[in-house]
Amino acid sequence: MSTQVAICLTSRGNYARTGTLLHALDDDPDTELDIIVAGASMIRKYGTLSELLREDGLEIERELYNVLEGGTPVASAKTTGLGMIEFTSVLNELDPDGVITIADRYETMSVTLAASYLNIPVIHTQGGEITGSIDEKVRHATTKMADYHFVSTEKSLDVVKGLGEEGDRVFLTGCPSIDLVEDIDQNGNDQYDPQEDYAGVGAQIDIDEDYLVVQYHPVATEYMSEYDRTWELINAVDDLNVQAFWFWPNMDAGTNQVSKAIREYRDQRSPDDVRFYINMHPDDYLTLVSNSACMVGNSSVGIRECSYLGKPTVNIGNRQQMRERGPNVLDVKCETEDIKDGINQQLSAGSFERSTLYGNGNAGEKMKQIIRQTDLTMKQPMKPEQLDL
Amino acid sequence: MSTQVAICLTSRGNYARTGTLLHALDDDPDTELDIIVAGASMIRKYGTLSELLREDGLEIERELYNVLEGGTPVASAKTTGLGMIEFTSVLNELDPDGVITIADRYETMSVTLAASYLNIPVIHTQGGEITGSIDEKVRHATTKMADYHFVSTEKSLDVVKGLGEEGDRVFLTGCPSIDLVEDIDQNGNDQYDPQEDYAGVGAQIDIDEDYLVVQYHPVATEYMSEYDRTWELINAVDDLNVQAFWFWPNMDAGTNQVSKAIREYRDQRSPDDVRFYINMHPDDYLTLVSNSACMVGNSSVGIRECSYLGKPTVNIGNRQQMRERGPNVLDVKCETEDIKDGINQQLSAGSFERSTLYGNGNAGEKMKQIIRQTDLTMKQPMKPEQLDL
Amino acid sequence: MSTQVAICLTSRGNYARTGTLLHALDDDPDTELDIIVAGASMIRKYGTLSELLREDGLEIERELYNVLEGGTPVASAKTTGLGMIEFTSVLNELDPDGVITIADRYETMSVTLAASYLNIPVIHTQGGEITGSIDEKVRHATTKMADYHFVSTEKSLDVVKGLGEEGDRVFLTGCPSIDLVEDIDQNGNDQYDPQEDYAGVGAQIDIDEDYLVVQYHPVATEYMSEYDRTWELINAVDDLNVQAFWFWPNMDAGTNQVSKAIREYRDQRSPDDVRFYINMHPDDYLTLVSNSACMVGNSSVGIRECSYLGKPTVNIGNRQQMRERGPNVLDVKCETEDIKDGINQQLSAGSFERSTLYGNGNAGEKMKQIIRQTDLTMKQPMKPEQLDL
Amino acid sequence: MSTQVAICLTSRGNYARTGTLLHALDDDPDTELDIIVAGASMIRKYGTLSELLREDGLEIERELYNVLEGGTPVASAKTTGLGMIEFTSVLNELDPDGVITIADRYETMSVTLAASYLNIPVIHTQGGEITGSIDEKVRHATTKMADYHFVSTEKSLDVVKGLGEEGDRVFLTGCPSIDLVEDIDQNGNDQYDPQEDYAGVGAQIDIDEDYLVVQYHPVATEYMSEYDRTWELINAVDDLNVQAFWFWPNMDAGTNQVSKAIREYRDQRSPDDVRFYINMHPDDYLTLVSNSACMVGNSSVGIRECSYLGKPTVNIGNRQQMRERGPNVLDVKCETEDIKDGINQQLSAGSFERSTLYGNGNAGEKMKQIIRQTDLTMKQPMKPEQLDL
Repeated sequence: MSTQVAICLTSRGNYARTGTLLHALDDDPDTELDIIVAGASMIRKYGTLSELLREDGLEIERELYNVLEGGTPVASAKTTGLGMIEFTSVLNELDPDGVITIADRYETMSVTLAASYLNIPVIHTQGGEITGSIDEKVRHATTKMADYHFVSTEKSLDVVKGLGEEGDRVFLTGCPSIDLVEDIDQNGNDQYDPQEDYAGVGAQIDIDEDYLVVQYHPVATEYMSEYDRTWELINAVDDLNVQAFWFWPNMDAGTNQVSKAIREYRDQRSPDDVRFYINMHPDDYLTLVSNSACMVGNSSVGIRECSYLGKPTVNIGNRQQMRERGPNVLDVKCETEDIKDGINQQLSAGSFERSTLYGNGNAGEKMKQIIRQTDLTMKQPMKPEQLDL
Repeated sequence: MSTQVAICLTSRGNYARTGTLLHALDDDPDTELDIIVAGASMIRKYGTLSELLREDGLEIERELYNVLEGGTPVASAKTTGLGMIEFTSVLNELDPDGVITIADRYETMSVTLAASYLNIPVIHTQGGEITGSIDEKVRHATTKMADYHFVSTEKSLDVVKGLGEEGDRVFLTGCPSIDLVEDIDQNGNDQYDPQEDYAGVGAQIDIDEDYLVVQYHPVATEYMSEYDRTWELINAVDDLNVQAFWFWPNMDAGTNQVSKAIREYRDQRSPDDVRFYINMHPDDYLTLVSNSACMVGNSSVGIRECSYLGKPTVNIGNRQQMRERGPNVLDVKCETEDIKDGINQQLSAGSFERSTLYGNGNAGEKMKQIIRQTDLTMKQPMKPEQLDL
Repeated sequence: MSTQVAICLTSRGNYARTGTLLHALDDDPDTELDIIVAGASMIRKYGTLSELLREDGLEIERELYNVLEGGTPVASAKTTGLGMIEFTSVLNELDPDGVITIADRYETMSVTLAASYLNIPVIHTQGGEITGSIDEKVRHATTKMADYHFVSTEKSLDVVKGLGEEGDRVFLTGCPSIDLVEDIDQNGNDQYDPQEDYAGVGAQIDIDEDYLVVQYHPVATEYMSEYDRTWELINAVDDLNVQAFWFWPNMDAGTNQVSKAIREYRDQRSPDDVRFYINMHPDDYLTLVSNSACMVGNSSVGIRECSYLGKPTVNIGNRQQMRERGPNVLDVKCETEDIKDGINQQLSAGSFERSTLYGNGNAGEKMKQIIRQTDLTMKQPMKPEQLDL
Repeated sequence: MSTQVAICLTSRGNYARTGTLLHALDDDPDTELDIIVAGASMIRKYGTLSELLREDGLEIERELYNVLEGGTPVASAKTTGLGMIEFTSVLNELDPDGVITIADRYETMSVTLAASYLNIPVIHTQGGEITGSIDEKVRHATTKMADYHFVSTEKSLDVVKGLGEEGDRVFLTGCPSIDLVEDIDQNGNDQYDPQEDYAGVGAQIDIDEDYLVVQYHPVATEYMSEYDRTWELINAVDDLNVQAFWFWPNMDAGTNQVSKAIREYRDQRSPDDVRFYINMHPDDYLTLVSNSACMVGNSSVGIRECSYLGKPTVNIGNRQQMRERGPNVLDVKCETEDIKDGINQQLSAGSFERSTLYGNGNAGEKMKQIIRQTDLTMKQPMKPEQLDL
């Protein structure tokens, strides 16, 4: 009898961080995979996901529209509530043996709670990491709701166990996004042409010369000042004489503030060395990053995937505050001069040693094996000794 | 400038467990209280709350209907999702300095998440306790979402800190329900007449003779077999020659299974020494318990309030599994013979020493002082040393 | 290419009123049927529907829980809003050529609007009738949203056209419930035993003697006084020396008031000639009615199905006010004496001539043929001449 | 005792079309007004409304975020369902004597249904008009839900009565937006400077020279081809040598298609005589229109307000199909050449005779008087003679 697991993807990042697991589950005759696409993944301006999954040979069980407009905390909260209502219907109907819930975005709570309240075991990935923003609350709360934990780093393993989770339900697997990076590193991705294949807007970039990849997301807990912060970054990139691929922000509260600044920059200065993108297929995006001179912004890609690539990263502000990082990351404040200095410093650094902090390229397969070999159950009440009390 | 805090009450139990805090906040000119009544508290068959609050002199800011019908896990999950949508609107409008979230019922998650996503600090009561059912997941997840913790027992204090919460955000206050018990103990509640004042159905009870208080709630994670389990309890009570006040179950998944068995018992056997109630004012309910010979079922009242009263409790099944308890509690399996034996044993025991495990009668005032003296903020990311790593 | 139509069933009444159409669509290789079960049909206390459909050989595409608890106007309105959200997801995914919306219950608006806003043609049954309560508003509003109309009576045909609907989109088909009645009349339903097959509660009825079928639903626009009105009816039935099968009310606002009165009647008087039921399979229910001496209450069954059966009906109060009726219906006020007099008068009347007012037994087949032969489209804006202006 | 009425505003258009009524109700001590701001009015990119209302001296009772992102039929339907849930809570709490529902936008159905199901009388404005798109269904369905009708034109009066509404519940009041136009016409609006006061983007316009006002909204029933249609319009405006103020589309399904075309036009051609706006205060917007050479697009403003102004309008495509119009309107297909010819023809026409088709400037006051003098009740079931049957 095969094990049926459901997963809900709400962003392209979700796919990058679980892709090799999804394909492993899909390929194995002893496991069955139900993919639900929802959230930002259903909205054109954040980059839709379904077509891309189908092209990659994955079937989609359900598509759900649940994003409230506004780019505010209210929109985030209602999006989660609405998602919870609809995921409940879907999970109740699909009735899987387990539900995979990914990382720490606020809307993942709707999947985690729907599954938990339906008495379906929850498998959580990327637990035990430590960062800023509302993600921090969501991540650890999810750990306490989840029944199984697939963590990326040794320290995360300690944190999840430290939070009282039973040792035999916590697995150090690494992050499937490192599998992708490893694959690109080994096998390349020759055919891709970021400017031919994707409808970016702005300047033509010479990809044989140095270029930055810039990705700056709003921080929900401080979202009202993101317009000003985005301009700090814009002025830094604009001052430097280096090309850039710039990606629009995710849908977190503050998204409109970030977007407004970018749009004004584009309209008012028409920069001749910056090209703007919504997003790309994870493979192509990681190839772009891999070939870049430096990653700039506050995306976790600069910390996770770039650690394995040894790619220099300028990490800005509080969003990734406290996240475990390799030697490739330089932290700077969100001020123009600091960012400029940081980029210059990282450009001269060139590249760094590979770090296997976030995995060594076989996370998806490991995760699949555990799912396949486990009779998924809900965890027992926490025993005080699990907290070393 | 006064501190404005909001609270959402979804059951009479919520009121019993926070009542003295609410009155303390209401009475203090330096604090402002916004009460939202929702969930089961808006549904007649579970006992409505608003009128009772008004009679007690408390004002109600909003009433929200968000309970899905069905008494199933699906209903629980959608109730929570719907609550999350509407609490978001209400909290966004009231814009309090903090939100109090109570204990561990599944629907409290909607308040906790709405407040968290709106960047409003969350104050959690009754964290750090350990029990069975979905409550266990909800409670610890709430701890990881919350910014302040008012715990009832010393062990809970250790657990909450063990879960990585900063020491100066965790307060051992005891449980406000013990304040009520203490007040009844000191001042009595003479005027009350449980059969005159409340519209119970069934036999007339002689309250000068021994009587049981029976309260049995469904366990959501095993809700499909609650019909049979309820009959195990019914047969035990029916076999014994002792009077009983029996309270209908709460709205958790399985409520209809429990209710069906009770209804059939009433219809088929018309017991001449059992009287059935929806609920009572916390003061009257606790007086009834205080005057009873023994508490029977799986309500936490048998463990918390009865520990202070030294009242014998027969605690049935897994629902309170692992909850810290005083000497007054006898645990039995949910089987007729075990329950009968348990009741007989506890009836002969008479009464127990007072235990101050869950507080010593000044919890509400303590909590209010902390709220008043604290500049409420959201907590910082967890530091590994908070987990002793 | 086959025509795919979706239908949402929210009550057993819905199934009785469309059953022969559903089976006709299901049997025809040129039509495809998607059944969604929702609303009261998912709630045990109102009688679940899915199992019954499956036993009848119909497949269910989706089940949705959307009923808010409370039995109040607020619950009705939120149930409709929640239904609208979820039907949108389901209809968007099923993408049918048309959606059938039934009659005039408040929650049908959620299906009608979801389909209309998704640009899916809407087929409405039972339009053009005239009654009291909120149903009246819902029915005519639905006519103005719908693209095709399958009406039951000649006068309804005139009303729907009078409301400005194009003649070639309005079809006089009769009501499929008359098909059921005709079938029972022709072929009988011998095996059925209402007391053996269904878990009624109360007295044992001698079905070879005279018995009433009593069904009284709340009127949403006057729901607060339904407790008193129900007692008027109870006292009438209780005073008369005649057996009765009594059916619990539907979920309209006021349902708890009606139920409370019935429950008290049962508890306090334990009537020895009344048996209480939630509901039955439409075939069995109509057989029960067909074999009864008289139908009593305010269900439309007393008016529609009973007109064809020539069965005497005592119709109480305003709920069916103005609905077209045959000679079998005697209208009385909701007062004990009037009801008693009415029942006595109808019992002596015996039976009435068959009326084909609501159809002559081939409605389902007619409707199916129209669906099959029509290229379903949305209607054009109303031309003034359609209103005879 | 004063009459309390609630209204929900979901767009600036809503405010323009009810503004003088709102101020009349607000000024009268015998009426009380509860304003709820929701829908597109809460979203920055569609133009928020609350601040503007407050500047005009109106108080806001509630603000609700209910817009789903996507600009698709699914988003429209879910927005309406979500609105219905939350309006129910708000109206249940405010408990007004009547609710005003405006015109025919899809989301108004949520207000209409919430009020109707709560047994609150509904007052509908702009009923009886005839147009294309989903609005046509919504408008007439709203007429059948509503209890009172304030219509704008004589023909609308006939249509509403023709739909079976009782004569003494239908009032010919004219449209409050004509009151605004009349006021601007009489008193001017000297201080306004559209380029100083509002943050438009694009070219500087010389407002002493001829300019167009362009407003093109998507048609929900054909929304997938709106990108192409918008380019037909863009090419027409771009080819002509005339200045233009161009307003972004409303949030109807297809909004992203229209916006995408406009954004590309702006990015690719940077037109030196077009300026882009989200919206303006109704007074300033109508002054801008009043001073323009010609209105172009498919907004109802070109038909209603411009008829009174005698302002030439080029009305494009099906959206306003069949709406009653004065001599100022020239209808053209949505093809570049037709639009160009139409604009040229209207520019040479200059101006037209004032038409009082949509009112003569005292609609708000008339409506208020009716509300004040009426004991608001729900209508009775429709009598066949109301349909001339």
